[in-house]
Amino acid sequence: MQKVTKLDRVPTIEDIQLTHETILPYIHRTPVFTNQSINELTQAKLYFKCENFQKIGAFKMRGATAAALALSKEEVERGLATHSSGNHAQAVASIAKNLNTKAYIVMPSNAPVIKKQATAGYGAEITLCEPTQEARETTLAAILARTGATFIHPYDNYNVIAGQASAAKELIEDSPILDAILSPIGGGGLMSGTALATRYFSPTTKIYGTEPEAVNDAFRSFQSGKIEVNSSTNTIADGLKTNTCEKTFGIIQSHLQAIFTVSEEEIVSAMRLIWERMKIIIEPSCAVPFAAVLKHKELFINKKVGIILTGGNVDLTQLPFTKF
Amino acid sequence: MQKVTKLDRVPTIEDIQLTHETILPYIHRTPVFTNQSINELTQAKLYFKCENFQKIGAFKMRGATAAALALSKEEVERGLATHSSGNHAQAVASIAKNLNTKAYIVMPSNAPVIKKQATAGYGAEITLCEPTQEARETTLAAILARTGATFIHPYDNYNVIAGQASAAKELIEDSPILDAILSPIGGGGLMSGTALATRYFSPTTKIYGTEPEAVNDAFRSFQSGKIEVNSSTNTIADGLKTNTCEKTFGIIQSHLQAIFTVSEEEIVSAMRLIWERMKIIIEPSCAVPFAAVLKHKELFINKKVGIILTGGNVDLTQLPFTKF
Repeated sequence: MQKVTKLDRVPTIEDIQLTHETILPYIHRTPVFTNQSINELTQAKLYFKCENFQKIGAFKMRGATAAALALSKEEVERGLATHSSGNHAQAVASIAKNLNTKAYIVMPSNAPVIKKQATAGYGAEITLCEPTQEARETTLAAILARTGATFIHPYDNYNVIAGQASAAKELIEDSPILDAILSPIGGGGLMSGTALATRYFSPTTKIYGTEPEAVNDAFRSFQSGKIEVNSSTNTIADGLKTNTCEKTFGIIQSHLQAIFTVSEEEIVSAMRLIWERMKIIIEPSCAVPFAAVLKHKELFINKKVGIILTGGNVDLTQLPFTKF
Repeated sequence: MQKVTKLDRVPTIEDIQLTHETILPYIHRTPVFTNQSINELTQAKLYFKCENFQKIGAFKMRGATAAALALSKEEVERGLATHSSGNHAQAVASIAKNLNTKAYIVMPSNAPVIKKQATAGYGAEITLCEPTQEARETTLAAILARTGATFIHPYDNYNVIAGQASAAKELIEDSPILDAILSPIGGGGLMSGTALATRYFSPTTKIYGTEPEAVNDAFRSFQSGKIEVNSSTNTIADGLKTNTCEKTFGIIQSHLQAIFTVSEEEIVSAMRLIWERMKIIIEPSCAVPFAAVLKHKELFINKKVGIILTGGNVDLTQLPFTKF
């Protein structure tokens, strides 16, 4: 099989095609679900890409796998490393296990026990640190120096972006021609991948980003034209607290039609509708694009709309449904 | 299309084939899911028939549709009726709406608000009664006398049994040859349909029933050879509180290998595993067969095992995951 290379530029259509072929043996091609009752409610035709059914329960498996498979044999042998409290940690741990190498994961000491357990379950070596960005980075730097492992950043990496793009590519392949596609924006890896795949494989489809109001850095960046940062991380959508970076924001800025923001209550209400009507478990983060469709219903009436459901890793003892 | 007739005998293979063809335009052919992590845990290969994705969120849509489509045009015009606090009420209401006729549903006054709303949402006329079996029956009898509507019993009806059989038929068609198949037993409609479909379409497959210990009427009936009844209905598996009847128990007695019972804690633990690993929402009732596989792991090691996931209608504000 032709090997995908390390990318130092915005992924081309060929990069995304090759990346997709390369990672396919390591990921699930997840189904696209539709739901009559939700279509009646929105008066649109919604196509949900179910990355909650992806390996490790989230799309992050795609990007981490793409980055890992772009490394040399020697690099793989020295191991993979990252800092993450969430799905990216599990994704790096899982692909390292698949490639028969070590994963070194730096996690903040306050990360949920279930996330630590899940990551350890893939055989990763976990190093706990203070729950600050600085502590994460210095702890990781020490590990990289000691082990020679390669840092796989969750989104500031063009191979990761090309990997995340494969979710929208599959959604486009498995749906009728979409009028619009929506993703949530955290660090922007999925959003920029979605934007590229849509521009390349379905050029007439409008591309929308979505964010919680509470962490609307991308929304403000899109308005101001430069990278803005969040001053708070107070949202239930725990996957969307991060800020974008130059690589992801550059792509977002070039290809998005608009970015919508939604309130915490709108997120929980949309999440609940998907749980109740579709009978699938999704994280708060992936209710954000659906909440945006509900909020801007008039824009999507009679349209075919693709939505990436990013993951399904939630703590069942800490559900938000009695809050609102 | 050849019309299915009212059945006054145990459904034959042809009855089930014809019933399946007849109801197909009105139901979803639901997917069969597998899950690597659950297979590793059980050391078996499990094939889950996802009736939680069925219309109205449960397999009951199959049986109610089969019974309704066996009626004459005049009978359909006079309307459909039943008493039920759960999924069967929604199923009758939904097929009545599809057939453009009335549904008269008797519900106990203590039925959950969401169930009443869902049933009313299909345009059914709901009559509330005291929460006793007697009140349900006399209230329904008065409605039948007044309207001329036809009572569609949730399981004491061979057309309903033939309809429920279509779930196992599809599971068998969409899986490799199964070593075993498991269903839960409430009134026995799904169990007897599953037994017939398996005997007809996969004769080498062993057929197991499963029940909560707290409502083990079928288990005791299977031992004693006569219909036993529950003295309590104190189980989280709210779909399994009913007793079997002559029609369903006759089939169960003839075809089942064994009936397994599981505790309330085993049900919640199995339900939680399916939610967490498979990212799908299932009712407590359909965790019962999976709980039985976990409990009798040694019986199923390296076997291909089919499990009917019966439905996904749960109250998200009343989840059991913090109880155990």
